[in-house]
Amino acid sequence: MIITMKKEMPREEMGKMRAHFESLGLQVHEIPADEFYIFGLTGDTASLDESSIKASPWVEVVRRISVPYKLANRAFHPEDSLVQVADFKIGGQEKIVLMAGPCSVESEEQIIRIGTAVKECGASVLRGGAYKPRTSPYSFQGLGYEGILAMKKAKEKTGLPIISELMSSDKLEEFVENVDIIQIGARNMQNYDLLKAVGRTKKPILLKRALSATIEEWIMSAEYILSSGNPNVILCERGIRGFEKYTRNTMDLAVVPIIKQRTHLPIVIDPSHATGDWKLIEAVSLASIAAGADGLLIEAHDNPEKAWSDGAQSLKPEKLKELIPKAKLVAKAIGREL
Amino acid sequence: MIITMKKEMPREEMGKMRAHFESLGLQVHEIPADEFYIFGLTGDTASLDESSIKASPWVEVVRRISVPYKLANRAFHPEDSLVQVADFKIGGQEKIVLMAGPCSVESEEQIIRIGTAVKECGASVLRGGAYKPRTSPYSFQGLGYEGILAMKKAKEKTGLPIISELMSSDKLEEFVENVDIIQIGARNMQNYDLLKAVGRTKKPILLKRALSATIEEWIMSAEYILSSGNPNVILCERGIRGFEKYTRNTMDLAVVPIIKQRTHLPIVIDPSHATGDWKLIEAVSLASIAAGADGLLIEAHDNPEKAWSDGAQSLKPEKLKELIPKAKLVAKAIGREL
Amino acid sequence: MIITMKKEMPREEMGKMRAHFESLGLQVHEIPADEFYIFGLTGDTASLDESSIKASPWVEVVRRISVPYKLANRAFHPEDSLVQVADFKIGGQEKIVLMAGPCSVESEEQIIRIGTAVKECGASVLRGGAYKPRTSPYSFQGLGYEGILAMKKAKEKTGLPIISELMSSDKLEEFVENVDIIQIGARNMQNYDLLKAVGRTKKPILLKRALSATIEEWIMSAEYILSSGNPNVILCERGIRGFEKYTRNTMDLAVVPIIKQRTHLPIVIDPSHATGDWKLIEAVSLASIAAGADGLLIEAHDNPEKAWSDGAQSLKPEKLKELIPKAKLVAKAIGREL
Amino acid sequence: MIITMKKEMPREEMGKMRAHFESLGLQVHEIPADEFYIFGLTGDTASLDESSIKASPWVEVVRRISVPYKLANRAFHPEDSLVQVADFKIGGQEKIVLMAGPCSVESEEQIIRIGTAVKECGASVLRGGAYKPRTSPYSFQGLGYEGILAMKKAKEKTGLPIISELMSSDKLEEFVENVDIIQIGARNMQNYDLLKAVGRTKKPILLKRALSATIEEWIMSAEYILSSGNPNVILCERGIRGFEKYTRNTMDLAVVPIIKQRTHLPIVIDPSHATGDWKLIEAVSLASIAAGADGLLIEAHDNPEKAWSDGAQSLKPEKLKELIPKAKLVAKAIGREL
Repeated sequence: MIITMKKEMPREEMGKMRAHFESLGLQVHEIPADEFYIFGLTGDTASLDESSIKASPWVEVVRRISVPYKLANRAFHPEDSLVQVADFKIGGQEKIVLMAGPCSVESEEQIIRIGTAVKECGASVLRGGAYKPRTSPYSFQGLGYEGILAMKKAKEKTGLPIISELMSSDKLEEFVENVDIIQIGARNMQNYDLLKAVGRTKKPILLKRALSATIEEWIMSAEYILSSGNPNVILCERGIRGFEKYTRNTMDLAVVPIIKQRTHLPIVIDPSHATGDWKLIEAVSLASIAAGADGLLIEAHDNPEKAWSDGAQSLKPEKLKELIPKAKLVAKAIGREL
Repeated sequence: MIITMKKEMPREEMGKMRAHFESLGLQVHEIPADEFYIFGLTGDTASLDESSIKASPWVEVVRRISVPYKLANRAFHPEDSLVQVADFKIGGQEKIVLMAGPCSVESEEQIIRIGTAVKECGASVLRGGAYKPRTSPYSFQGLGYEGILAMKKAKEKTGLPIISELMSSDKLEEFVENVDIIQIGARNMQNYDLLKAVGRTKKPILLKRALSATIEEWIMSAEYILSSGNPNVILCERGIRGFEKYTRNTMDLAVVPIIKQRTHLPIVIDPSHATGDWKLIEAVSLASIAAGADGLLIEAHDNPEKAWSDGAQSLKPEKLKELIPKAKLVAKAIGREL
Repeated sequence: MIITMKKEMPREEMGKMRAHFESLGLQVHEIPADEFYIFGLTGDTASLDESSIKASPWVEVVRRISVPYKLANRAFHPEDSLVQVADFKIGGQEKIVLMAGPCSVESEEQIIRIGTAVKECGASVLRGGAYKPRTSPYSFQGLGYEGILAMKKAKEKTGLPIISELMSSDKLEEFVENVDIIQIGARNMQNYDLLKAVGRTKKPILLKRALSATIEEWIMSAEYILSSGNPNVILCERGIRGFEKYTRNTMDLAVVPIIKQRTHLPIVIDPSHATGDWKLIEAVSLASIAAGADGLLIEAHDNPEKAWSDGAQSLKPEKLKELIPKAKLVAKAIGREL
Repeated sequence: MIITMKKEMPREEMGKMRAHFESLGLQVHEIPADEFYIFGLTGDTASLDESSIKASPWVEVVRRISVPYKLANRAFHPEDSLVQVADFKIGGQEKIVLMAGPCSVESEEQIIRIGTAVKECGASVLRGGAYKPRTSPYSFQGLGYEGILAMKKAKEKTGLPIISELMSSDKLEEFVENVDIIQIGARNMQNYDLLKAVGRTKKPILLKRALSATIEEWIMSAEYILSSGNPNVILCERGIRGFEKYTRNTMDLAVVPIIKQRTHLPIVIDPSHATGDWKLIEAVSLASIAAGADGLLIEAHDNPEKAWSDGAQSLKPEKLKELIPKAKLVAKAIGREL
């Protein structure tokens, strides 16, 4: 950690500060500079609170040099983490996984019908929302437990493992029992009690990035799950909030190589939320694969104009069917398989 | 709601769409235009899902004309809502309220000491964090229930009502019993289960704006609480995420007149989080009052350099003491009192 | 254009407003609604100033339905525009073009050396900055005319056409004479005098998107060039400003299909500025091609650690050489060539 | 400057890097750390290119400690700079200045009429746009020189000094001769050729912040003018681009104390562009004064519904008249005068 102090700082004050850091077991290196005094702190600075150091009227700048994540850090865990789901693995050089299904489960019949369709297209995980986080209290809030049971039926019929979003830890047991991958939605990325709760299970967790989370904050949320004991974390980028009006969100695909370089966790892209527009999904899906993503999470609906939510960003199965062979070719071009 | 359709849309398709809307009890007005077909929908469009309409390949643009919030809407509730806390009210033309205290409760002794100090400065609510949402799992997570009990002691000693952040609905009872105002933090602004839970109480709820929430989304989160039965909502702006590096967050004070014009709810400003820098708190506090805010929520600590969190954005009581007379003068200049 | 007015608006005022619009040759369609009065205006609304309509105290919302660009609009110009450069074309289904070279021209020797190297890698345009827009007045500002002459020499030696950034219209003649593609930088995207000036030539213009321009504003800047008489516009995305700290900029590849769907102009991606980090360039380049980009603009330097600017985001020729065969495979996967 | 290098960096490579820095006259301080090697560079690092240092595959992080601006820096110039305009000064503890007038000059008669009205309200500078930067080439582009002459007439009639926006250096002479304050608009904040040109005059320059400029970039643009020889720079904040939809721009008033603490230059706020809505101007104006701004730049029009541009964010003179006494009271509350 680097601390810059004003030249007018009394030596005595500086001495007190140095003593304080040394009492915490840190090494303090003073760097003589013209305009400032500079301390370089080494040792285990992870527990230091930057904000308190900055509270001193003599301190100008406090900069952490080392990254704050440990368990997710590729530097300490060079090999790729693979997450086992049903009979396959996600991450590393494994097959790129396609997860698809409707935004909302609307009925048992619907989720079985769409599940069958996306399986035919090549999907290997079925997605479906039973508990829905909606901006408006007046919008459809999901079928709840009934939706989870409907998904379970769809799993039995299609053989596809299922993924669904958990919004509150009081439903955790229900999800652990019934669902193959637990999704933590963007709005709950920093709901730390929920992260700790899923961290105490061994279930695969798909952790979506919050709308305005930095990549570091997102990795730190993964760190909550990992440090609670669950190594099965899949990161999922779904676009961030920006000023653009032609898309629902802004998705920087540079996150794919960044996550790959900095962590050992698998990363999946959700082009439906990233764009909000089914006409953009194909291009963004192919780009995601080319960038190195380990999977795609696509909203699919056989009658999007009648969908209870997110129709505009759902692909019809026939469009999904067109996308898959192209996606396979791009995957092959970069030496992977889908 | 205005729907624009491509000129190439077959009349038959358009007829079907019209019939669909009419079957939902809406009136459909067709506007002849050169480049598009346009439908103007009137009636109760609140339950319509825009996204599904946009899913049609013929639809170009879907625009909602009416605002989606009802209970918070000043148009339907012209008089200011006042929220009763202890023996005073917040909102309308009531006295501007000052809430102050440390980011984290560190001990019973500390919160009593700081509580006493901020009361002397003129604060009428004591803030203190017992459950802390921290970006890192390795940072101090708060004293928990012990912290709540310490705050209660501070309340007994100082007579100040207390505000603290609730992170999870399983602690709701603890908060209802012990705390005067329940704070919902920025990270949980769209934790809808939590909003519904506090909406089922009658406690005053201070709802912070999320880092990247639009003003409309923030009001919609208030709507969750209001529509669950609790009218005692206080909005709190604490800065949004932006690209600026010299401040922790970006705070647009235009939210104050916007909230006042669009809703009837009180609004409080948190200049500590908005700036992240105690040297900026005074200017932003005075500006907030001039803009019409109903209160200030300021982090205060008597030894910020030793604070367990947020030291850099905490005012020392002596600085708070300097701020208050200036704040009183600005309040008077705009015809209010602090 | 849709205009919503408060229900309390006096009929007389509404009559005056209607008469005003009709006097401008527009058709006014009134839509009866419960909460508002609504006007739908049709006819040529392009010259209407939305802001003045909103100035009325009775007006709530003003929404333009039709897009404001005409010449760039694919609806009125369905076939792809191709831009001729030297003996090849950019856009449509043409070969994907690779433009590469140093951020700054440092000497004649340097630009010839790097030009030769990037040509060997497969580049078909040589980039180089002679006039440099630098944040600091104390940074290297470019070699100026000397740099342009050095590029010309490099063109003679390598046979590659050259692209360089024009910052001010008083150098326009110099550029028209010597340069094959004139680049308008992000900072000058809304320097309308400069846009009009290059619009009066027939040179190919590469128009970079400004750091915080919406896609619509960017297209409108292209419209300035097109409407001044120059059809040879190539759009170039180089990342927008966001809150992320791990990258220099944020680049949403969804712009590629959006530009392709809404306009007929070619689009090129600059992964160097988009990421600011050479370690991310390969992944973003492959993703750009998969998304459908017509070209790449990559900073390349044979000694980036000694580069006078932008070293961190420059690829060494040997890295560029590794990238090309992968890029060719991805291009082939989507049915194009590079 | 702090440079962090990977532990795997060969000592030989590190030696070369150290020698390189020393050859530039810098002092290199090595800090032993567990996970990294760290260099602290002291001496004149202003000319160092961070990007090139980062280009090394061994370098992890490069952080500049000292701020890059010198002439604008309050540390080297502690007293406030005052800018003389006509017979008064702007900045420091001088009277807060009110600049008002229409977005566009529409005719000589109009600018004289509005100039007379705003003078009566208490304005001491008349604003008016003659050359207009418009997003669309099809919008009114301003009266040009005719507009400048009309403003000059208004100056003669009212005695008010005038401010107008310069878009291109080929009109510089026209502005130097006729205008009292030259405005550089947000879109040209990084048009460095234009900054250098106005820097070679001695005219007061009002430099607006660009839509997505950081505060540091904005100060660096001021530094261009200052380092070209013109000390008469007034900064003007007009809101930045954000994701909010209820306002045109987002304006963080924390910039006022930040500019005051970091530089010695005057700062003026433009609440018209910041909000885009005349109903928000009063609150934001009062807040700006409370925050410590040295002036306000407000768009005023006596018939905003017929204004040729920016009607929605223009105050009618009668509204301006209501605002002034309130503004005077707030100014007095913080110990200043308006």
